[in-house]
Amino acid sequence: MDLKELIYDLGRRARAASKQLAQLSSEQKNAGLLAMAQELIDAQAEILAANARDVARAKANGLSSAMLDRLTLTPARVVKMAEGVRQVAALPDPVGQAISQWTRPNGILISKIRVPIGVIGIIFESRPNVTSDAAVLCTKTGNATILRGGSEAIDSNLAIAAALSRGAARAGLPADAILLVPTTDREAVKLMAGMDRFIDMIVPRGGHSLIEAVVAAARMPVIKHYNGICAVYVDKEADLDIARNIVINAKTQRPGVCNAIETVLVHRDVAEAFFKNGGSALLENGVQIRGDEAVCAILEGKALPAKEDDWNTEFLDLILAARVVDSVDEAIDHIESHGSHHSDCIVTKNPEIAERFLNEVDSATVYWNASTRFTDGGEFGFGAEIGISTDKLHARGPMGLEELTTYKYQIRGTGQVRE
Amino acid sequence: MDLKELIYDLGRRARAASKQLAQLSSEQKNAGLLAMAQELIDAQAEILAANARDVARAKANGLSSAMLDRLTLTPARVVKMAEGVRQVAALPDPVGQAISQWTRPNGILISKIRVPIGVIGIIFESRPNVTSDAAVLCTKTGNATILRGGSEAIDSNLAIAAALSRGAARAGLPADAILLVPTTDREAVKLMAGMDRFIDMIVPRGGHSLIEAVVAAARMPVIKHYNGICAVYVDKEADLDIARNIVINAKTQRPGVCNAIETVLVHRDVAEAFFKNGGSALLENGVQIRGDEAVCAILEGKALPAKEDDWNTEFLDLILAARVVDSVDEAIDHIESHGSHHSDCIVTKNPEIAERFLNEVDSATVYWNASTRFTDGGEFGFGAEIGISTDKLHARGPMGLEELTTYKYQIRGTGQVRE
Repeated sequence: MDLKELIYDLGRRARAASKQLAQLSSEQKNAGLLAMAQELIDAQAEILAANARDVARAKANGLSSAMLDRLTLTPARVVKMAEGVRQVAALPDPVGQAISQWTRPNGILISKIRVPIGVIGIIFESRPNVTSDAAVLCTKTGNATILRGGSEAIDSNLAIAAALSRGAARAGLPADAILLVPTTDREAVKLMAGMDRFIDMIVPRGGHSLIEAVVAAARMPVIKHYNGICAVYVDKEADLDIARNIVINAKTQRPGVCNAIETVLVHRDVAEAFFKNGGSALLENGVQIRGDEAVCAILEGKALPAKEDDWNTEFLDLILAARVVDSVDEAIDHIESHGSHHSDCIVTKNPEIAERFLNEVDSATVYWNASTRFTDGGEFGFGAEIGISTDKLHARGPMGLEELTTYKYQIRGTGQVRE
Repeated sequence: MDLKELIYDLGRRARAASKQLAQLSSEQKNAGLLAMAQELIDAQAEILAANARDVARAKANGLSSAMLDRLTLTPARVVKMAEGVRQVAALPDPVGQAISQWTRPNGILISKIRVPIGVIGIIFESRPNVTSDAAVLCTKTGNATILRGGSEAIDSNLAIAAALSRGAARAGLPADAILLVPTTDREAVKLMAGMDRFIDMIVPRGGHSLIEAVVAAARMPVIKHYNGICAVYVDKEADLDIARNIVINAKTQRPGVCNAIETVLVHRDVAEAFFKNGGSALLENGVQIRGDEAVCAILEGKALPAKEDDWNTEFLDLILAARVVDSVDEAIDHIESHGSHHSDCIVTKNPEIAERFLNEVDSATVYWNASTRFTDGGEFGFGAEIGISTDKLHARGPMGLEELTTYKYQIRGTGQVRE
């Protein structure tokens, strides 16, 4: 079978499976998920053996130790993966909920009902546990999935997907509910992106160039998870203790994630007070500060001078770009010009200034006096997360189970016709 | 200025205008809409003169009389256009509404707030009143619009857009809130579709090839308005009077629209009874029936034999494909294989069969005992409609004002940080 036939065959099978999945009860889907969790446990040896092949290949190819760590599975990690599947089974099922319902003057009853999207394509890199995490969220919401993982993890991904499919089939779910692209050929991504007949939505999770490639080729909606260039603005009326705590938390608690901040903007009136205290705390936490002239002057040689690029960079590291601004407007302008519309925060005691920031900053999540690190499905109370969308349509910000559904209108009448 | 510069300049201006529009109150936006309505009235002579140039050109180019009718404006049509703008001003504003709101155990308050999308691109054909209809719905919801109308109507569209912009500016709205692409160069569509930096969503309204061209080039979400191949299934437990009324209404009340039906599927047990009575009524209403063998036999030469293509064709005319089926499953299979997932209906007295149909037919709007002609923003009670989406994501079915908005999360805390 050539590659195109292979991918289209996956598409056809996923589409057929999606029709069956959409009609299953929550109980049937949950039974399937529990069987999948058990199959992961039962297939532990097989999964670890496959993973060992991936790791050996990665070492031979000279992958960094951080990448190797992300790739490597252990018995504990497989158990955790299975535990994650059981947790998804325990979540409430959004499918079938009435979003709204109303009766028209002519007596027809219109119900807007949550339904599965159909077939979801997920394209991701490196971490093999994404195979399981993403697939089971789709199963829970009655969607079929076509997964395309990174080439480094192909053996692990195949073993995990096979276990999940066995679990699905054993519990009476369609065996094609979860399909993994069994090749590392890069052309497969392009073929998936063009296959709007069989894939209703694509979620690329990975680096900028992966997402770009999918966007350029896609004919169906793509929910993009671009990077997070997030900022905290410390207003002249900020409580500086709160400001320091939030900046330190948002920068240092986990610097490698998208909801960590890359930039702090401080009002000129409080810049000296903030940087004398908060700046030292940042430095003590190992943060390198790249400041504009004013910041460098206040920090007396303890900050590096910021380059233009630093305002547009997701460092994913203990590096913070710092700038003094003259007003909330200048802060908002900076965020709109340099940020990535992900998560941004104002620290102030002034509710009017806060409301302006909350309304005018065009980001998925905008904070007043709280850390940007809360942009997360778990922290929002969603129970699960497929990622954090930087798109505006369909899903914006943390994507939970609801964001894996769409709706249809069901209309019940007694013979009404249009006049 | 070359074409690319021209389009990108529109994009930049629209983006800047969208930032201002998003911050306006409902009162300010409504004042702008009323001023736009007045400018349309005041510019009537100018608009009609421009339209006369379009019509003269169209006649010289040999456009069909149906197309000419769609293109031609009259004083009454301009007044109706202005009246439409005033009606939009009177509708409730969805922007700023809290979709949901909750407090987390750590005390942060999460509000999911409806906000404008930003810049909406609208690509349409022929009817110049779309310029006004689409633009004002976008203004109402705080979005900037870039409009790209058909070449036949370019002079009319320019005159209408100029009047709307004057109204906007006079009422203190940004003059760039409504921008019309001032060229008929087809390359402009491609450039718009690639300009995801400045356009957040594109709505193509027109023929299949126009939509296809946009989908192929677009980097941003496209809300597609494909055609409607809609069906009514008359179940063996149907009330045949209701069935006849619905089929006649859905086929003949306005055959040229997307929510009219193209196909009737009738259960074998009631086929003779239905076609003897309902078939005659259809024929009396001037409907040409293209039937399968069973239908042709029942109608004894009054039906034409259906060709394979007839099951997949949007006739937009008094033509109806008719088929006898043996079960609701066969009806659902037919609709899933040949329909366009727009609007489909079952007529039955059996609630179990009805629920199966409502759940299993994967269309934007599924009816039980009511005409498919109700798939319409006005009939749904939306007050306005920008079209009927055949897409599954963001907007499905009739698109009203809410579907021209997205959401953001505003989070209010008292210094919370993540542990």
